[in-house]
Amino acid sequence: MRKSFLKLTPPAEFFKILNSFGERTGSETIPTIDALGRVSVANVPSPIDLPDFTRSTVDGFAVMSKDTHGASGSIPSYLELSGDIPVGAISENAKITISSGEAVRVVTGGMLPDGADSVVMLEYTDLIDETTLEVRRGVSNLENLVVPGEDMKKGDLVAKCGAPLRPFDIGALTGVGITEIEVFKKPVVSIFSTGGEVVEPTETPNNGQVRDVNKYGVSAGVLEAGGIPNRMDNVEDDLDSLKGALKLGIETSDMVILSGGSSVGNMDFTLAAINELSEIHGQASPGVLVHGISIKPGKPTIYGIVNNTPIFGLPGHPVGALIVFLIFVAPMIGIIGGVNNPLNAIDGNFDDTDYINSTSFVQAKIDRSISGAPGRDYYIPVKLSPQGDGDIPIATPLLGKSGMISILTMSTGLICIPSMKEGVSAGENVKVSLFKT
Amino acid sequence: MRKSFLKLTPPAEFFKILNSFGERTGSETIPTIDALGRVSVANVPSPIDLPDFTRSTVDGFAVMSKDTHGASGSIPSYLELSGDIPVGAISENAKITISSGEAVRVVTGGMLPDGADSVVMLEYTDLIDETTLEVRRGVSNLENLVVPGEDMKKGDLVAKCGAPLRPFDIGALTGVGITEIEVFKKPVVSIFSTGGEVVEPTETPNNGQVRDVNKYGVSAGVLEAGGIPNRMDNVEDDLDSLKGALKLGIETSDMVILSGGSSVGNMDFTLAAINELSEIHGQASPGVLVHGISIKPGKPTIYGIVNNTPIFGLPGHPVGALIVFLIFVAPMIGIIGGVNNPLNAIDGNFDDTDYINSTSFVQAKIDRSISGAPGRDYYIPVKLSPQGDGDIPIATPLLGKSGMISILTMSTGLICIPSMKEGVSAGENVKVSLFKT
Repeated sequence: MRKSFLKLTPPAEFFKILNSFGERTGSETIPTIDALGRVSVANVPSPIDLPDFTRSTVDGFAVMSKDTHGASGSIPSYLELSGDIPVGAISENAKITISSGEAVRVVTGGMLPDGADSVVMLEYTDLIDETTLEVRRGVSNLENLVVPGEDMKKGDLVAKCGAPLRPFDIGALTGVGITEIEVFKKPVVSIFSTGGEVVEPTETPNNGQVRDVNKYGVSAGVLEAGGIPNRMDNVEDDLDSLKGALKLGIETSDMVILSGGSSVGNMDFTLAAINELSEIHGQASPGVLVHGISIKPGKPTIYGIVNNTPIFGLPGHPVGALIVFLIFVAPMIGIIGGVNNPLNAIDGNFDDTDYINSTSFVQAKIDRSISGAPGRDYYIPVKLSPQGDGDIPIATPLLGKSGMISILTMSTGLICIPSMKEGVSAGENVKVSLFKT
Repeated sequence: MRKSFLKLTPPAEFFKILNSFGERTGSETIPTIDALGRVSVANVPSPIDLPDFTRSTVDGFAVMSKDTHGASGSIPSYLELSGDIPVGAISENAKITISSGEAVRVVTGGMLPDGADSVVMLEYTDLIDETTLEVRRGVSNLENLVVPGEDMKKGDLVAKCGAPLRPFDIGALTGVGITEIEVFKKPVVSIFSTGGEVVEPTETPNNGQVRDVNKYGVSAGVLEAGGIPNRMDNVEDDLDSLKGALKLGIETSDMVILSGGSSVGNMDFTLAAINELSEIHGQASPGVLVHGISIKPGKPTIYGIVNNTPIFGLPGHPVGALIVFLIFVAPMIGIIGGVNNPLNAIDGNFDDTDYINSTSFVQAKIDRSISGAPGRDYYIPVKLSPQGDGDIPIATPLLGKSGMISILTMSTGLICIPSMKEGVSAGENVKVSLFKT
């Protein structure tokens, strides 16, 4: 009567399978100011040189550098103050031209007058009288200014296809006058909890029922990963209900997540539902691709594709469900939403045991010994506490049954004991992958 | 004519000054499902035991453990199958009671029948006929189940005051039936660009004018830090305009940021505006507290408080403005919004040279030598590129004038050469603080 896993898929292979998915969300054009964290669909070239005029980088006096050569505290140069580009009135006064022997006052960011090739900093000058400037330090050609295109040349990329936009990317885009940008739509993710024992949080559970943890935890995870969560009605644990739910999810979203029901019966129904629907949809529907992954917790995970829509069946235990979500599903939301290589670890040291939706790692000293899980990568939530100043923090593993959500709420991050490792010993240094929020 | 900095404030002292600010935003009650990243105003205890009934953690058969003692493959125990708690129909059937010698089928997460004290996993059983169960492995008392309150006891904290809520915190809250939560309001931050040369991104700049970079970059940074950005009309560089802007900002928001105009004149006006307004507002208005910090870039930074509202005057150069924003202003938005210790580095190794709004650090090898900035902590944007597998990445410093926004858009993170250090040498390992997005 027991259905066994055909073959556990190693995490690294699972990542390859996820990465090979080729569909992306469509695009939409939005105001640049609303594009934080969004992903440009294309490389965006600057339409202008930035700056497009020569700007001073300091407060001081625009001069011809040759007029200051050799100037020093003991032998200053003297120039005639022939103009002023005051604060807040740069554009009107910037058409001044200077000749040899003249200087014009400029402020930081201000336009240089024609003829000037450098700026003497205020610190190295004194006004002897209203029109006589003493310069106590020479400047060389192009000193203390930026020339047109020095920041960005017309055609230089202001945004890269596949890279989420950061605050200064937004500033750079507005700086070159790009006020709208075409980005990938956020992936819509339908989330179902399965199992008759699961009730909504607002309901009072009857004997043997529990309030839903996974649908809401996963929903928040989808938001954090840049997707739009669609929380769907709970699904009964039978083939027809599951097929109906999947069909609805596939029609209305870019990804479907079934969560709950990690019982053997439920897994069988989920597998059957995916495979039966995949027969209807033909080529774009390879059906179940992964059934069981070699990690702990989270072994009973299902992944399939129906009608170009990825489907995840997550374990019912909250810890397994949310760890699998963070490690595999969150980066997949990135992939579908156009992010370039969301699976690449930035430390150049990715060994498939990182919690790789995180780019945040800290070294810590583990305070008790833990045995590995033979044949499986073992992810363990840990709580970090600071040691004395300058020491690395202590990681306390939070062990317990994977049905216990409190293990995650008390934790700061995850460590991983890779399948080939026997365990970690108390006092050993471990690498902790931090949660994103 | 030159106004010098009275005294540069070291970053560590600046953090202490920021941390000493005592005002917090008010609170609002929102649906738990919308509370990702929000900060609870109070410790929230669980109103129930979780679970509130004894649940199986596996698929199998609920038994009295004593009936299975000594059972093995060669000498199995035989029990009478007296009931079934099928998938999806747990509540109705959970009132079964078993007696010695009996077993009841249960699924993962299912309620145990009265009398049972353990669950035999499916793997170690076989049904010999419709009512006879062969058990090939003994179980001990409480094996393969969770007892009421084992995950969380009534009164255990589901959310902590001051800790931003993560996906599994949301799941835990819904799991104990907390569907609304009182959180700190997001701090409203008014952002002004100053200087007559700055025009809106939609405008075509005249000679000597530039489109606004800082207001939009800072605005996106405020969003990322959990605040609500209020982009205000640009302000002319004179005392009355600045006072008017500050007054409006103080009346309508929890924090005010002035950006641009790092010219000496502008700084003087900003200082004067803050101090003059502080005279009107009395005790809650200490006025200017910091004028110049000993970092590079970002030295000409101003911080003050008027009418219990923190005011930052950021440098005009985009690189300085955005680095100062990330290091000092973003954590301050956290402080005002109720986050506990947003300034504490999680690696236990905080030495005031971390880019501390980030908890993400990677080790990298720098590919060229750089001299430090005497007396100042020197922050340098770097671009990371992977080396060969297993090696730490290469950090390439992006040097250039701090007016150049492209230095930030091309970078992956920041390194810091502390004020007491002469520099870093090519090939040296450096700690890179990664940007959040």
